[in-house]
Amino acid sequence: MNRQTLIEQIRKKKSFLCVGLDTDITKIPTHLFATDDPVFEFNKAIIDATKDHTVAYKINTAFYEAQGLKGWISMGKTLDYIPKDIFTIADAKRGDIGNTAEQYAKTFFDTYPYDSVTVAPYMGKDSVEPFLQFPNKWAIVLGLTSNKGSHDFQLQPSGDGLLYEKVLTTVASWGSVDNTMFVIGATQKDQLERVRQLIPDHFLLIPGVGAQGGDMDTVAKTAMNKDVSILVNVSRAIIFAGNGMEFAEQAAKAAAGYGAQMKPYFK
Amino acid sequence: MNRQTLIEQIRKKKSFLCVGLDTDITKIPTHLFATDDPVFEFNKAIIDATKDHTVAYKINTAFYEAQGLKGWISMGKTLDYIPKDIFTIADAKRGDIGNTAEQYAKTFFDTYPYDSVTVAPYMGKDSVEPFLQFPNKWAIVLGLTSNKGSHDFQLQPSGDGLLYEKVLTTVASWGSVDNTMFVIGATQKDQLERVRQLIPDHFLLIPGVGAQGGDMDTVAKTAMNKDVSILVNVSRAIIFAGNGMEFAEQAAKAAAGYGAQMKPYFK
Repeated sequence: MNRQTLIEQIRKKKSFLCVGLDTDITKIPTHLFATDDPVFEFNKAIIDATKDHTVAYKINTAFYEAQGLKGWISMGKTLDYIPKDIFTIADAKRGDIGNTAEQYAKTFFDTYPYDSVTVAPYMGKDSVEPFLQFPNKWAIVLGLTSNKGSHDFQLQPSGDGLLYEKVLTTVASWGSVDNTMFVIGATQKDQLERVRQLIPDHFLLIPGVGAQGGDMDTVAKTAMNKDVSILVNVSRAIIFAGNGMEFAEQAAKAAAGYGAQMKPYFK
Repeated sequence: MNRQTLIEQIRKKKSFLCVGLDTDITKIPTHLFATDDPVFEFNKAIIDATKDHTVAYKINTAFYEAQGLKGWISMGKTLDYIPKDIFTIADAKRGDIGNTAEQYAKTFFDTYPYDSVTVAPYMGKDSVEPFLQFPNKWAIVLGLTSNKGSHDFQLQPSGDGLLYEKVLTTVASWGSVDNTMFVIGATQKDQLERVRQLIPDHFLLIPGVGAQGGDMDTVAKTAMNKDVSILVNVSRAIIFAGNGMEFAEQAAKAAAGYGAQMKPYFK
């Protein structure tokens, strides 16, 4: 999906909600285990319940990989099931030297036709560039994450600034606003202004609103630009809003709640 | 596999050779495509041909993931086929927040029972720790890689030193020499001494000898310690030494050549 279409979808739905399908098999309702593929049945119900409020789905590949072949089958079926006008993210955080990165790009842009994949920056330019060679596909590069460990390296001094600042400006120079986004953890709200000084135009994928405690109003007021250019990801607080027979209704209600929080920011 | 056993295997074989199974399906001999699983048949022949000279196999997961389900099947069969006295590495370079990293640890230590997995450090302590909770399993954390992109961040100033130096000393403090190794690119030989100043006792996984041009003598003389504590990875220069009917014989010859280069360093 290209940038223009993504922005149009966001404006049409008045939503920048991304739902994270971190489908932990130990947390899904027990009645689904009567089906052949409980993970897919769960995702299918969640997608049906949330798609009207949602402009992107983020599949956290780890939860599927941990299930082995079955998990990859569930993941493939889930990706196929997502409506084509909704942006898809493989949250896989891959990163390796050039010839290997090419294989990861093939995995998530071709074998599994996602719109985008999350990428780790530590290995530098040749580990990111292979993801920038596919028309209408995106690399979403880790900038500043929302976990405690972000203090270990990302928030450490590097040259005149902090490491994540160097990562943002350096990685931004390798691609364009049409093929590069950044992961920016919303729970570190005091940093959002700085991020927008450094990369005013790039799309940001913002986790940490919801279960991790980030604040929607701060995020919207600080990080939105004239093209909106943010995707706010919520995973557990939506998909595990309930865990009984009515889990999908509860997810729908949670997604509608986040959607309602976003509407006022669209004029 | 624990540290003691790994060191014993290295001393027994007088070899610290790791063979990288970066099995690119576009590069394997055409006659293997008459079989049901050409990637596995290729790996099986390579393992048979090289195992006497080899103390570790490193499976580069990207090349398997790019083939979808078939690739994961080939990978699982390959892992099963590796003799139990040889150390196994999932070269997957995973890294994510705690609850997701736990899923990756489950993937590569349990669902697929590797001895070790490569891990990216950018997200910090909580992204690495879940890999350190499994007895006799290892996290092999990216320190200094051998690609050009290592100059973008790893070799940039960070505090009093360079970023990779901070990564080595910080990550080393999270685990022990019994559960943590580091990836150190051998082509940057001038840095090997510095690495050994910072982490004298840890095992190093050293790529870049062979196709990438690193020098075995420098590596052995600079990076070996009293427990050997290095694994030198060679991928393409061994597995794609030939590409006709006799590819396995040529791989055997290449592996024996590397093995012969290593023997003099064992007294």
